[in-house]
Amino acid sequence: MQYTSLVTGGAGFIGSHVVTHLIQPGHTVVVLDDLSGGFQENIHPKAIFKQGSITDTSLVNSLFETYAFDYVYHLAAYAAEGLSHFIRKFNYQNNLIGSINLINASVNHNIKCFVFTSSIAVYGDQELPLKEAQKPQPEDPYGIAKYAVELDLENAQKLFGLNYIIFRPHNVYGPHQNIGDKYRNVVGIFMNQLLKKKSLTVFGDGNQSRAFTYIDDVAPYMANSPAFAKAYNQTFNIGSDLPTTVNELAHEIASVMKTEAHIHHLEQREEVVHAYSDHAKFKAIFNPTPEVPLSKGLAKMANWVTTHGARESSTFENIEITKNLPESWQ
Amino acid sequence: MQYTSLVTGGAGFIGSHVVTHLIQPGHTVVVLDDLSGGFQENIHPKAIFKQGSITDTSLVNSLFETYAFDYVYHLAAYAAEGLSHFIRKFNYQNNLIGSINLINASVNHNIKCFVFTSSIAVYGDQELPLKEAQKPQPEDPYGIAKYAVELDLENAQKLFGLNYIIFRPHNVYGPHQNIGDKYRNVVGIFMNQLLKKKSLTVFGDGNQSRAFTYIDDVAPYMANSPAFAKAYNQTFNIGSDLPTTVNELAHEIASVMKTEAHIHHLEQREEVVHAYSDHAKFKAIFNPTPEVPLSKGLAKMANWVTTHGARESSTFENIEITKNLPESWQ
Repeated sequence: MQYTSLVTGGAGFIGSHVVTHLIQPGHTVVVLDDLSGGFQENIHPKAIFKQGSITDTSLVNSLFETYAFDYVYHLAAYAAEGLSHFIRKFNYQNNLIGSINLINASVNHNIKCFVFTSSIAVYGDQELPLKEAQKPQPEDPYGIAKYAVELDLENAQKLFGLNYIIFRPHNVYGPHQNIGDKYRNVVGIFMNQLLKKKSLTVFGDGNQSRAFTYIDDVAPYMANSPAFAKAYNQTFNIGSDLPTTVNELAHEIASVMKTEAHIHHLEQREEVVHAYSDHAKFKAIFNPTPEVPLSKGLAKMANWVTTHGARESSTFENIEITKNLPESWQ
Repeated sequence: MQYTSLVTGGAGFIGSHVVTHLIQPGHTVVVLDDLSGGFQENIHPKAIFKQGSITDTSLVNSLFETYAFDYVYHLAAYAAEGLSHFIRKFNYQNNLIGSINLINASVNHNIKCFVFTSSIAVYGDQELPLKEAQKPQPEDPYGIAKYAVELDLENAQKLFGLNYIIFRPHNVYGPHQNIGDKYRNVVGIFMNQLLKKKSLTVFGDGNQSRAFTYIDDVAPYMANSPAFAKAYNQTFNIGSDLPTTVNELAHEIASVMKTEAHIHHLEQREEVVHAYSDHAKFKAIFNPTPEVPLSKGLAKMANWVTTHGARESSTFENIEITKNLPESWQ
């Protein structure tokens, strides 16, 4: 069988890797990306590229008309969890309404499976490790939007038979990541700061921890997931089992970048302190290879960023609420 | 103290009653309503009326600038739970994005309290009676949107100190209800059908039950709620304790309308079969008067609808998904 897939956010970090794993002789991959966070250079040359936003309902509908997709991989999002408090409307417009355009079109065009990239942000501050059986209790607008899309997919499955697979990755890093976005992705932020010979900015004491996950432990499984019938209409945590503190991460990154970490502590911000997930459900279905160790993954990414150089951080233009906005974001 | 309040949806059913209870000498009440479901005649003559939508960000911001509201009562919504499956984008745009415009403005203008009308639709299909301690598990886009707003308010409280009170009413009926909307409010639909000498349409066997609630058991408590400090940043079920089946309701209504019920059963639709709530939390704080019995409430409403006459049902113009749309809605 030869399939046609839509990858939203296919010029972005995770999306571009999913595209790479989907590109095979005879298959067609269409990338929809507005290049707000992604880059033209990330787009696989064999993919068909349409520049535009998932919030553009008529564009979305016309793509579904034209290409009769078999599969939809929905990775487009503005995934700045911390900033989402201050850009609430933008967050819901992009991350929820955009997703709904895709769900509507997927129902109307009877696609075979809708692969959705959610986030562990849906869990909120709960008992660790986070398990799929725990009921989400998102605590920021980004997590709320992701959870609303999950619930909407469940409903669309029940009412219209739309098949879905939901992945909840966490703190994925690797080549193609936008290291110029100062609002998200601490690995990229640190590498960019080191390239610019700046100190590493850490919110609070740096003892908050996350399970940083190399892209190769995520993207190929997402790309191949529609081949796993048992994964249909299920939700999976995906990513590393091993939590690392932000301080430890800073030193690991300095080490692979062959420099020293000078940490500049900023005022603590509102965020979940510790987060790591259980992956038993994922492993039972997908039987993944052992995860890429942090030092090895960071070295691969460092190699890529060193080749590509630092990126300028642009400031988000349309902040909706400035109250309590961290000073470094103003 | 003299207060200025914004009531969104103040030309609608519950909103117009909230306005009535807020209108007092010296106080100012501004109604924002796009008249999509409300009526000019419902608007209290002493209220300031602005016609427009909560989704119009600049209009919302300019109202907050102009009036420096103390309190916001947010009742504007398109509350057609069953239809929300088929108008997903419209539902989230109106019921979530519109609410976010109000939350942003309320944070930016430091209002004293944000009173939000949610719905028992947030619970989904759970053990009865529904209690506030149960974690919501909404099963339709309408309930998902309401729950997302609840979560967003909790977050805005935590991050910005915005005080809120959330009410989850259920199946409220009474004068001012739009009996011409064929997609929602079974009491109004039945009365309109009887006025037109039509048979009463019931989805499925009619044994589904709801606790129908007279408007006077809801609106005055909402209006006065900001005076109850213990209610701040809390969520309350509000409404009748007594479930009634749709079949029983049909006969009660026929009786108060002094006619007979001819029931026409339609194909069952996707909906929660039984729903009624526990109101212990509400009673402990608000100490309400005994509820208006169904027969008495229905008689009052019947009196009003008989005076005002039947309304033509218009068909919703922009259905997004027609798959599995009940035939009577096409």
